[in-house]
Amino acid sequence: MGPLDKLYAKVQASRGGDPTQSYTAKLFERGRPKIAQKLGEEAVEAVIELMRGDKQALVGESADLLYHLMVCWAEAGITPDEVWAELARREGVSGLAEKASRPPS
Amino acid sequence: MGPLDKLYAKVQASRGGDPTQSYTAKLFERGRPKIAQKLGEEAVEAVIELMRGDKQALVGESADLLYHLMVCWAEAGITPDEVWAELARREGVSGLAEKASRPPS
Amino acid sequence: MGPLDKLYAKVQASRGGDPTQSYTAKLFERGRPKIAQKLGEEAVEAVIELMRGDKQALVGESADLLYHLMVCWAEAGITPDEVWAELARREGVSGLAEKASRPPS
Amino acid sequence: MGPLDKLYAKVQASRGGDPTQSYTAKLFERGRPKIAQKLGEEAVEAVIELMRGDKQALVGESADLLYHLMVCWAEAGITPDEVWAELARREGVSGLAEKASRPPS
Repeated sequence: MGPLDKLYAKVQASRGGDPTQSYTAKLFERGRPKIAQKLGEEAVEAVIELMRGDKQALVGESADLLYHLMVCWAEAGITPDEVWAELARREGVSGLAEKASRPPS
Repeated sequence: MGPLDKLYAKVQASRGGDPTQSYTAKLFERGRPKIAQKLGEEAVEAVIELMRGDKQALVGESADLLYHLMVCWAEAGITPDEVWAELARREGVSGLAEKASRPPS
Repeated sequence: MGPLDKLYAKVQASRGGDPTQSYTAKLFERGRPKIAQKLGEEAVEAVIELMRGDKQALVGESADLLYHLMVCWAEAGITPDEVWAELARREGVSGLAEKASRPPS
Repeated sequence: MGPLDKLYAKVQASRGGDPTQSYTAKLFERGRPKIAQKLGEEAVEAVIELMRGDKQALVGESADLLYHLMVCWAEAGITPDEVWAELARREGVSGLAEKASRPPS
């Protein structure tokens, strides 16, 4: 079980907890727009720390981003295995070939 | 070795490749602002797919986001183990307590 | 008529045009998620140019951001006057007082 | 003087104020990364309100976004007139033609 699988399990376990005691439970209670907002905000912070070149801060923001991504997955009913399968599917299809194979976004 | 460790290794292996053949090599060649931009863009797309409730599209955007996060880590000289260590450090410190322990953002 | 009112009028005038000839018409045809995505992407680019300190590039990204904000307003049925009224409403309510008067986000 | 010119003038007037009394003065004191972060966050909130279709909330987030954009301009030494000139420059160059004339991003 990798670090993200563990983090996801922790998020799922906290989900139904007391919102006054658990940040995770509170986030689910506030609902999908707030969960989406937090993902976007943490990504903006990671962008800024990369531009600043503050490596240690980027480690912290990356942990925040991954945590909120796990919350998004749980909210959407996605399991980590589904994302790992998607990554594995893309494996052989590397580089520009992969990019070209995607539908225009 | 978890899926993100594998993805990171693949990013590092592609890094010095031919930018005309490898999307990854091309991204590193374009430099840090472009790498940061891609992370932000993929996060915006994930935010939108969560709001739309398109689960399969969110799986795809999550894979894109994680791939570009690995590129950010490689660009900043961060290894996955450093982020896993940060996640482990936060483990016992859960929920609102953890949030409260962070400096005000 | 200020510069944004003019830009908004231009967006509305282009809206029903030929999507193969007009970027604006094409954007409306692609729909709300694509419009929202473009706003997010332009903001990320502005964030990065501010961090880089490239003033001229930030002028360009600001123009892009404002253009896509006008598209968002048109898509949502908002007129510039409604936003100007909101800005005027906040006028007397300045600084920290204003911030405090908002509901917690 | 349009609404954004007024907003910009207000931001500049508040800039050197007491950070304990003025949100604007406090933001400048916290510095460029925080200013950039706020712009990104407000854009994420606007994206989410557009996806939700909450028109009134999008009016509010648009006001927030424009306010923080004025702070970015002041921080970068940009005046509104420079952005209005850029918008005017693009005027005759409309639609896909304009898009095509930009350097690849």
